[in-house]
Amino acid sequence: MGLEEVKVIGSRVSPFAARVMIAFNIKCVEYELIEENILNKSDLLLKSNPVYQKIPVLIHRQLPISESLVILHYIDEVWASGPSILPSDPYDRAVARFWAAYIDDKFFAAQLAILIAEGEEGKKGAAEEAAQILVLLEDAFTECSKGRKFFGGDRIGYLDIALGSFLAWVRVIHKMCGVRLIDECKNPKLFEWAQHFSAHVVVQDVLPETDELMDFAKLFVAKLHKPSG
Amino acid sequence: MGLEEVKVIGSRVSPFAARVMIAFNIKCVEYELIEENILNKSDLLLKSNPVYQKIPVLIHRQLPISESLVILHYIDEVWASGPSILPSDPYDRAVARFWAAYIDDKFFAAQLAILIAEGEEGKKGAAEEAAQILVLLEDAFTECSKGRKFFGGDRIGYLDIALGSFLAWVRVIHKMCGVRLIDECKNPKLFEWAQHFSAHVVVQDVLPETDELMDFAKLFVAKLHKPSG
Repeated sequence: MGLEEVKVIGSRVSPFAARVMIAFNIKCVEYELIEENILNKSDLLLKSNPVYQKIPVLIHRQLPISESLVILHYIDEVWASGPSILPSDPYDRAVARFWAAYIDDKFFAAQLAILIAEGEEGKKGAAEEAAQILVLLEDAFTECSKGRKFFGGDRIGYLDIALGSFLAWVRVIHKMCGVRLIDECKNPKLFEWAQHFSAHVVVQDVLPETDELMDFAKLFVAKLHKPSG
Repeated sequence: MGLEEVKVIGSRVSPFAARVMIAFNIKCVEYELIEENILNKSDLLLKSNPVYQKIPVLIHRQLPISESLVILHYIDEVWASGPSILPSDPYDRAVARFWAAYIDDKFFAAQLAILIAEGEEGKKGAAEEAAQILVLLEDAFTECSKGRKFFGGDRIGYLDIALGSFLAWVRVIHKMCGVRLIDECKNPKLFEWAQHFSAHVVVQDVLPETDELMDFAKLFVAKLHKPSG
């Protein structure tokens, strides 16, 4: 393959892979998506990311790069002439990195907890934990956006991608589990942000439709409930 | 306080705080260490890092920055004229970021598991898990150092700091639990690297003596064993 060819081992159902695709759309860089079956991993994935065996993996100049937030940094640094993904100010960058790590640590786990919770009480407890996380993220939005449309200000940046990549799953969780993660009354700013983000040209073709993702979500949850699966 | 004053809420017993202190030594930046009692947190810490309530917190220009790896990026970017902490090549940076996150995710947890494991069997299981992680880190050293002394090449860099900050705890775990994490036979390159790192002028006054850290480690493990503590 050509040295400069850009390949992404990913999947339309993965929020982490969506981050990479959105970043390439921002940079106007063409890439080939190698669709991975998350429920039955390929040899290419196992070879490219032997440590975690997870998507996404970016293959650039024949070298693999794993972990979505690491890949976002790499894209921003290699295709530096395109619009910036990370904020330009070091303090703003530190704040964005802090919250992106928080999202991966807490918000992702909270969504999984809702998906696998059993019974009404279980779902309710998981939803309450998630609601507390969203309160902090609403505050983070106020701090980062400084009254503008996105975490990144007037345009989509690192933290928009980190959180926004989950919006298709947020919609699926609402439909499957009856839990409204981003609520118009409780998180009015994030609610409005989510509309802007989802409708943005660099995002709209990346995030899957709710019904398409629902089909996968059902298989995924069934697999999570079967420890040997 | 002066706008340019640099304060670190940290502790000599914390590997994560050690990272920040080593980074400032590399950059030849003076800072004030505000010693935190990890077992009884101060109001300043709770106010400065309300989300995680953990050290280290860097306070610069009166703004708090949390999470040690985020702080290392901030220091490298703000004091950019000093020796670089992150590698200069984007791919090398991606590799360093990948392994630093791996260290915080896996190696830190493996050390905690050894410290709190009960009985001979428990310790042995935890030690075997840690040994597998060290095999991967030995490979990572080969990849990153390219035959030179440090992960960062000829000088201490991001990944050296991320792993090396744990070396005082590695020695305590050997003395307290009889588990030799970095073994001369199994991890010869890391063993040699650890000697170079610990003796380096930017490190030697930062990492605590084994006996000093042992006293704290005993209190810390006792607290971990007492869930309500």
